[in-house]
Amino acid sequence: MSADRADPGRARGEDWWSTEIIEMRPGMIRLRGYPIESLIGRVSFPAMIWLMLRGELPSAAQADLLGAALGAAVDHGPQAPSIAIARMAATCGVGINSAMASAINVLGDVHGGAGEQALALFGEIAADMDAGTALAHAVAAGLERRMPDGSGYVPGFGHRFHPVDPRAPRLLALAREAARAGVVGGRFADIAEALEGAIAARKGKPIPLNIDGATAVIYGELGFPPALTRGLFVLSRSVGILAHAWEQSQQDARNKGPLPREWLWSYRGPGPRDLPGR
Amino acid sequence: MSADRADPGRARGEDWWSTEIIEMRPGMIRLRGYPIESLIGRVSFPAMIWLMLRGELPSAAQADLLGAALGAAVDHGPQAPSIAIARMAATCGVGINSAMASAINVLGDVHGGAGEQALALFGEIAADMDAGTALAHAVAAGLERRMPDGSGYVPGFGHRFHPVDPRAPRLLALAREAARAGVVGGRFADIAEALEGAIAARKGKPIPLNIDGATAVIYGELGFPPALTRGLFVLSRSVGILAHAWEQSQQDARNKGPLPREWLWSYRGPGPRDLPGR
Amino acid sequence: MSADRADPGRARGEDWWSTEIIEMRPGMIRLRGYPIESLIGRVSFPAMIWLMLRGELPSAAQADLLGAALGAAVDHGPQAPSIAIARMAATCGVGINSAMASAINVLGDVHGGAGEQALALFGEIAADMDAGTALAHAVAAGLERRMPDGSGYVPGFGHRFHPVDPRAPRLLALAREAARAGVVGGRFADIAEALEGAIAARKGKPIPLNIDGATAVIYGELGFPPALTRGLFVLSRSVGILAHAWEQSQQDARNKGPLPREWLWSYRGPGPRDLPGR
Amino acid sequence: MSADRADPGRARGEDWWSTEIIEMRPGMIRLRGYPIESLIGRVSFPAMIWLMLRGELPSAAQADLLGAALGAAVDHGPQAPSIAIARMAATCGVGINSAMASAINVLGDVHGGAGEQALALFGEIAADMDAGTALAHAVAAGLERRMPDGSGYVPGFGHRFHPVDPRAPRLLALAREAARAGVVGGRFADIAEALEGAIAARKGKPIPLNIDGATAVIYGELGFPPALTRGLFVLSRSVGILAHAWEQSQQDARNKGPLPREWLWSYRGPGPRDLPGR
Repeated sequence: MSADRADPGRARGEDWWSTEIIEMRPGMIRLRGYPIESLIGRVSFPAMIWLMLRGELPSAAQADLLGAALGAAVDHGPQAPSIAIARMAATCGVGINSAMASAINVLGDVHGGAGEQALALFGEIAADMDAGTALAHAVAAGLERRMPDGSGYVPGFGHRFHPVDPRAPRLLALAREAARAGVVGGRFADIAEALEGAIAARKGKPIPLNIDGATAVIYGELGFPPALTRGLFVLSRSVGILAHAWEQSQQDARNKGPLPREWLWSYRGPGPRDLPGR
Repeated sequence: MSADRADPGRARGEDWWSTEIIEMRPGMIRLRGYPIESLIGRVSFPAMIWLMLRGELPSAAQADLLGAALGAAVDHGPQAPSIAIARMAATCGVGINSAMASAINVLGDVHGGAGEQALALFGEIAADMDAGTALAHAVAAGLERRMPDGSGYVPGFGHRFHPVDPRAPRLLALAREAARAGVVGGRFADIAEALEGAIAARKGKPIPLNIDGATAVIYGELGFPPALTRGLFVLSRSVGILAHAWEQSQQDARNKGPLPREWLWSYRGPGPRDLPGR
Repeated sequence: MSADRADPGRARGEDWWSTEIIEMRPGMIRLRGYPIESLIGRVSFPAMIWLMLRGELPSAAQADLLGAALGAAVDHGPQAPSIAIARMAATCGVGINSAMASAINVLGDVHGGAGEQALALFGEIAADMDAGTALAHAVAAGLERRMPDGSGYVPGFGHRFHPVDPRAPRLLALAREAARAGVVGGRFADIAEALEGAIAARKGKPIPLNIDGATAVIYGELGFPPALTRGLFVLSRSVGILAHAWEQSQQDARNKGPLPREWLWSYRGPGPRDLPGR
Repeated sequence: MSADRADPGRARGEDWWSTEIIEMRPGMIRLRGYPIESLIGRVSFPAMIWLMLRGELPSAAQADLLGAALGAAVDHGPQAPSIAIARMAATCGVGINSAMASAINVLGDVHGGAGEQALALFGEIAADMDAGTALAHAVAAGLERRMPDGSGYVPGFGHRFHPVDPRAPRLLALAREAARAGVVGGRFADIAEALEGAIAARKGKPIPLNIDGATAVIYGELGFPPALTRGLFVLSRSVGILAHAWEQSQQDARNKGPLPREWLWSYRGPGPRDLPGR
């Protein structure tokens, strides 16, 4: 408590910004109670992320699994709005931080929220199981809420572009491996696989687990709440956003637009007209 | 002064955020000293913008001229990165304010800074004239600094796309009209025209005044400093950014990318390879 | 249609970015069909905003009423997160556009969405009236949905700080005046006043119309849909955001924090600890 | 190359977005040539960051050193504008990605650029040494450019708050250790220490290496160019930004301002006044 507590105004101001994350005095920085110099070089970057978000250090195996999920979603190419925005922004005369911010900002409910929604669904099913429902029944009930008439979208499954998203089976295998090693429980992997089977049965065709569903499995196994899933995705995709902003900035484009410079856009509004008599 | 000055901490905290712009007490809001209810409906929106930025109210004619310049630069179509970003962001599941923020954020030195740079140049020339240099000589000296070897870019002149930007002559005519009516002095219009002539003589072809140069003339005539020119451009372009974000949001696109959905991008990196032995 | 339609790829690319807002060819810019040089200096800035968002020009009286609402919400002081963020950002070494973007970005559901929610409520009540329900009954039904047990929050009414928000009665008076002059219909003003009365009766104390409710009345009278209300608020508050960013940038602060520089924050996390044995 | 090269428009559009970073086909994702499923779980998160930015995989020791630097700068508490903005934004009704974007956006030249500037200085000195100048002379010349009259600011040294920044000596020790192990060359550590000594001699008091200087040493040793230093800082600080946004969002604040809710700000503008007669 740094305030001069004899000055109630200062104490009130300092309390307004209270936190459990970081403590500082001149020459001293502690994160969650650990002196920062004792952390640097001793815990991995994913372990630092975990400590900052959760308050306690993970085991090395937990940190590695987190790092694998973070590494899996770094990029999906310039057709993704976030990546395209990073590249265009990098040609507009702003710092690389601002190019990244414009891009990160669009990782919203549609572009960045599927993992959060998938983990929320997995969590509902897990809660049903905690209350005594069998996996198959809990999955069926969860699907019923998402696909009441057999159609509808289940977050974490299916991909517009990839018949099978190559990241998903690999991540699921890592989750299974971690479960076998006792690092995680394995329940979210079970739920995801049961969902995949049940969706295929309902749809009559495979709608496989995608990257959002697969990272949700891992984040859920590791105990992260759904809302943090989007935050973790931001940390992950920021890497691709930076890489693309950087690559673009090494070229000499100015005000890069979405289409080749000599193209325009189709205009479909009203034809030429005069101002009403005034 | 609202703080209980007997509490030095509170007073220090409140002083930390002191401003000359707005005063508030419960039931009272004053902008630059004017009760807000006396401003609403009595001064135009451009006059409010002026009051907020400059501290005093403009004349009606000054406010109209400011409004004309603000209205001129609202849009330049979806090939502009700012507009494209607004449209893509609107499909990503963020609020319309966030779609606008991602777009406004890229109005940087390259995409939004030409007006500021043009007005800085005009101001250098005006300062030379204040020191007794004739217009033609001051213009020549200013150009010499920008085009030492006859080539180079002069901010506010020339356009990649428009042989003549249709907004520029119209804005210049408004500035001339305002000068004839005594609303402004007319010096920045003189400087811009002299620059246009001198650039054409140096280049051997016309490089006409563009929208950035023309709005810089008006903002300069009205007494705005160069750095505010970019801020005014943001207010102006925000209108087009909002219009495009809104139009896009009325359609059903999800995660709109820069190219048609069935297209990819060209990959030019290394061919397929295996991880080094590990 | 600018594409060389003999090149199907180019046509497909140009159609991907089609719009009804702006048409361009070299030397030609048309907004909603009007040549831009015919608009500049002939229609006010609020009329340009209207044209861009709605597709048609407003009457002068409609544009003035829009301008009054836009002018009313420009600022609410540095305690508002948007304004504080603009000021802090201005000290961090980013362009004024980026300082504005960081601030505009937080005008979300809580900070910028009350007007949208208020107009949605007004619209529900208006729709009930269209279906034959009397004003008082439609208002009661609307309130019942928002305050089922007599408590709850009604968007557009009440203010944490102002017993009566001085902007609201002034804006409502302007709406009434415009209704008397036949500029608008007056129905949303009726609905807002009826709501105010009914809320007071339920709560046993006045919970007066606030700035969000009052601007929603005007935007609704003028025919804007609820979702655009937030966009209009962004245009309005951007003025205050720019003014504060500008004022701050004229001072010499670097990395301005929320509290006086010599203060810290209260730390409430775990006490000092050693890394677990590793 | 995915385009139907018989369609020149499509090929032109796809080339407009060409990249060396990522290749995709349905069911296939390769980063820098490596199938993504071969990377996931086999390379650490810092190694993925390196691969994306540099095009080649680092050694495990290089990746660990990068991770240590990334972990060191994750947070500096709520007095930093970036952290304060993240917390305020989290109370305004925007997604966690948007809260992060508003914060990341302010890591500009002043708040996020010192590492870049420090590495640029180290690089100038290294280039002098490559040209045959001895370390001490190259350092003296570099300082002369930054502190021509013995005063002035040298990026990477000194701290407003910490007499000695506890992160810097720890990072420098890691760089030394890596140099002894042959992972890096050690030259930037030499330069930083020589600068520290020379600054102290000029100033007559110690101005020790700070976090920006220490991370610049490591990023320089690892071969990153100065401009990427800011991008790496963004990746690092994003962790603290997320942690604070998340902590704040778990509380129930709405529109959190910079000061306690019952405080205002000091107003220092003109006193109350009437509109000029109109």
